[in-house]
Amino acid sequence: MRVLGISGSLRAESHNTALLRAAAAAAPAGVALELYEGLESLPHYNEDLDTEQPPATVAALRGLIEAADAVLISTPEYNGSIPGVLKNAVDWASRPRGEAALLGKPVAVIGGSISDYGAIWAQDHLRRALGIAGARVLDVELPIGRVHERLDERGELDDPETFTELERVWAGLLDRRQELKAA
Amino acid sequence: MRVLGISGSLRAESHNTALLRAAAAAAPAGVALELYEGLESLPHYNEDLDTEQPPATVAALRGLIEAADAVLISTPEYNGSIPGVLKNAVDWASRPRGEAALLGKPVAVIGGSISDYGAIWAQDHLRRALGIAGARVLDVELPIGRVHERLDERGELDDPETFTELERVWAGLLDRRQELKAA
Repeated sequence: MRVLGISGSLRAESHNTALLRAAAAAAPAGVALELYEGLESLPHYNEDLDTEQPPATVAALRGLIEAADAVLISTPEYNGSIPGVLKNAVDWASRPRGEAALLGKPVAVIGGSISDYGAIWAQDHLRRALGIAGARVLDVELPIGRVHERLDERGELDDPETFTELERVWAGLLDRRQELKAA
Repeated sequence: MRVLGISGSLRAESHNTALLRAAAAAAPAGVALELYEGLESLPHYNEDLDTEQPPATVAALRGLIEAADAVLISTPEYNGSIPGVLKNAVDWASRPRGEAALLGKPVAVIGGSISDYGAIWAQDHLRRALGIAGARVLDVELPIGRVHERLDERGELDDPETFTELERVWAGLLDRRQELKAA
């Protein structure tokens, strides 16, 4: 199973990118998590550019989502909601209407923040937006508060409890994938 | 009174930009609405770039908001929430924490969509994000459904009812501005 991982933060030492690396380490046998590297190079969504020949970076994102069996997104929270840069990727991937890359795709959302709340509102808005875009979003949330305290000096997750929770997310994503294959 | 108008859509024939032009026409005497033209040129928010010397386009946005007496935003709705490109501008304008351009600024939110709902969820999420960023957001919404049916063949608003509602928004914004000046 191939899974595309998308971090909602562009920061080089992003906590949410670290969570995706930890998720890769916690993944069950047979699951490969590939990190999406193109978030920064996407143009801002503009319907005038959303033609049959979209920008190359947009076509690449859509192709990666289409080729993946599932998507795992780790989001920070900016101003109580989804970072604009991450929402922008969802906006591109939600089109064209009726044949979008996200349509029917199993997606799980996790998120971390340095506050106690673990990006819970961003996760909520993101799950909702993905659902409207047609994704099969897992009804699971993983708000990881004080995420910086769970990383070691190399910026890697060092927290057994969070690893266990990531394994739970993987189990949910595999179940959802099986359900969709069986349907 | 100088007001900065921000349209959440980059489309050349954007309905929301048309709503801001209509708002300019409906503005009371003594109010000048300037349309922000820089949305597309903002980089994606990246905390690593959010230094004392931010990108020039970011400094320009912050300067325009600081120089304005109030801000009026017209937003479309993408996937049940704020367009990523517009949220990105809010994310930049919400920083630096404690001295952000948006802090204490009177802001009103309106929005239009071709559906019946008039971008009501986007307006809700946007008001909330602006409030968390420290803006003094008007508790007024103006969801303009089937906005395309309210424009004439030149793309200009041709709907007395919407003009009346825009005048109501202006009255609220002026009241809020007076309250803040008096406080």
